[in-house]
Formats: sequence, structure tokens, C-alpha cells
Amino acid sequence: MKGLFITLEGGDGAGKSTQIRNIERFFTEKGLSVVHTREPGGTPISEKLRGILLDNDNSEMDPVTEMMIYAASRAQHVKEVIMPAVQRGEVVICDRFVDSSVAYQAYGRELGDMVRDVNRYATGGLTPDITFWLDIDPAAGRARAAKAGALDRLEVEKMDFHYRVYEGYRRIAESEPDRVKRIDASDTVESIRDHIYECLEELCRSKGI
Amino acid sequence: MKGLFITLEGGDGAGKSTQIRNIERFFTEKGLSVVHTREPGGTPISEKLRGILLDNDNSEMDPVTEMMIYAASRAQHVKEVIMPAVQRGEVVICDRFVDSSVAYQAYGRELGDMVRDVNRYATGGLTPDITFWLDIDPAAGRARAAKAGALDRLEVEKMDFHYRVYEGYRRIAESEPDRVKRIDASDTVESIRDHIYECLEELCRSKGI
Repeated sequence: MKGLFITLEGGDGAGKSTQIRNIERFFTEKGLSVVHTREPGGTPISEKLRGILLDNDNSEMDPVTEMMIYAASRAQHVKEVIMPAVQRGEVVICDRFVDSSVAYQAYGRELGDMVRDVNRYATGGLTPDITFWLDIDPAAGRARAAKAGALDRLEVEKMDFHYRVYEGYRRIAESEPDRVKRIDASDTVESIRDHIYECLEELCRSKGI
Repeated sequence: MKGLFITLEGGDGAGKSTQIRNIERFFTEKGLSVVHTREPGGTPISEKLRGILLDNDNSEMDPVTEMMIYAASRAQHVKEVIMPAVQRGEVVICDRFVDSSVAYQAYGRELGDMVRDVNRYATGGLTPDITFWLDIDPAAGRARAAKAGALDRLEVEKMDFHYRVYEGYRRIAESEPDRVKRIDASDTVESIRDHIYECLEELCRSKGI
């Protein structure tokens, strides 16, 4: 059996971590082996690249450089972690993937089509079986994230950047409705979980799991 | 006046460093300001990426990851160092550039067209005014480099890799004869310098320098 590849997307403070734990529980209760990973990061090389990306000292980083470091990190993550686990029949749950690059770099940084082109090479064409976009208003999300602690380099960006990112996610969800499920992150944790579980039940039925 | 962008290419042990000093002298004697830089590297961010690339601990690095880290480093180098200097009217001499990625990654690692595609984004289309390819037989080059000290991760690759890289350089030179000047690196240091100076005189005449 081929496994599943599931990604979560959404701005800071959308509640991704809580729902990742719920998704993990959903599959372990079905007796499936689950790998939980995140981007940027997920391998020793990717973690080193993550360190360069999130370092406040690197504030003079060019947007194209940033996009390519994300893509480099992702290429390693796909080859070393995601693909091998999916091929072993496991369920991979990944916190952020290509949609983050499209939202943050193609829309937020306004780099356009080059982001999808470069990421097609980085992933070798691997696409998630399902993606949950935890949709939260950017201002509300940042208020929640700020409460949780210090903000890193990406998080100190201005609000208009975050609204462009939001528009990016909205367009991705609109253009790929079968893969990308919009989840209202202003709902209670329980209703969000129930909504996600419904989508997962349907996915498992369609895959014969 | 717009400046000049000059690159040197060639396998290890081809004698690039000596000829870079000669090119520097050629232009300083004409009263021009010269910037000497190298790839991978050339900016603080690029040097951090260079550290990841040349680290022997990272031997499990995927070829696509490697190619994208080079491209990320190059994007930063172009925006932060090369383009500003050329726009100030200076002469930039760069030890390795896109041709290295095409030779080592497209041919050596057999990644093909993706290397040129990704690098077109990394450089924003910037192409050298002239490139000197110091052509040396791969076996002879490696023997010279080994004498000079320890070999890093790239240098411990097998000989068939180095012959593919060589074939890459040969094809680049063949397809862009106006830009890429093949220099026989088995000649004496003085004849190599004279050959390079002839090409530079012609370039300066054509540019009205």
C-alpha cells in the first residue's frame, strides 16, 4: 500500500499544532504509522538551512535567495523523509509545504511564477493527497502569535505583506478545491477537529484505507 | 559607464587564482576599479551557504538540494555584490559562476535543463561579458589539486563525474563562442596570461574602454 501525504497550511496563530496532533491521533487509531514533520526543516541539512532563514541577522536577504533556500530545504526533505515514508505505506503529516512558498514568496514577496517553477523541481512533482488550510484573518492570527512569544524575522513583516499572503492562500484553495480544504480557524478547536476528521474519512474511503 | 563582468571557469588545479591576479592587474593598470569575488560565497549569507555545501558531514545531500543551495547563494551574490559594482562602472572578476552549475550539476550530476532554468531566476538573466574557461584534462587537474592539500566533499567524487563536468564545459564553450574563451591550461603561466590579455584588449575595444 502507498501511504498518504497530508499538509497543513495557514498563517501564524491559526492553531496548526493542535490539529496536527488530532490528525496524528486519527491515523494511529486506525493502526497506521504516522510521521510528523515540518518545513522549513525536517532533515539535518534542512535544519541548517532553516537556521539561516529564520536568523534575524540575515535581514538583508534577497527574496529570490530566500525562496531558493526554502526550495533547497524542501528538496532534501522530500528525498530523505517524505518520499521514503509514503513509499513504506506510512502517513506523513507536514506542517507547511509548497503552498507556503507560493503564498509567502509568490504572493507575499510578489515573485510570481518562478516560485511554482522552482518548487516543481524541488519536489519532483510530489503533491499532497490533502491539504488543510486553517483560514484565519491575518490581524487575528498575528495577535495570537505575538501572545505566544517573540516573533522571528518573517513575523516582523508589515501587515500588507500578510494580507498578500492571505490572498495567495485564498487563490490556491479556490484553484484546487479537491486537494485544499479551507477550514475556518475561528471555530472552536472541537469543530475544527470534526471538520478535519470528516475530510479524512472521505479521503480514506476514496483510497480504500 | 557600465562596468564589466568577467568570470573564470575550469576544474580544480587549472590555475584560476594566478590568472585572476593577472586580470586584476590588467584593469588596475587601466585605472579601473576592480572587485574580485568568488562562488560559492561572496556575501555573508552566501558564505554560510558555502559552509553547508563544502561540509564533508553533509555527504547525504541530494543533488537537487545542492543545485538549489548554489542558486540561492548566487542570487544573493548577484544582488548584493555583482550588480551594484557593475552599475557603479567597476570591473567584477568572479571565480566560477552559472557555467560551473551547468557543468557540475546539469552534466556532472546529470540534472539536465532544470539547472539553467533555476539559475535564470537566480541571476535575473545577468550574463558575463566574457568568460575564460581554463581547459585542463580532468586527471591532470586533480593531480595538481591533490598536491595542494586536502580535498573537500566535491573533490572526492569519482573520475567519471569529472569527465562529465569536462564535457559540460566543452559544450558550453562550443555553444557560446563569443562569450566563452577556451584557454589551454597546460600552456605556461605567461602564455596563458598573454592569451587572456589579447581577449581583454579586444573586449575593451568593443566596449570603448
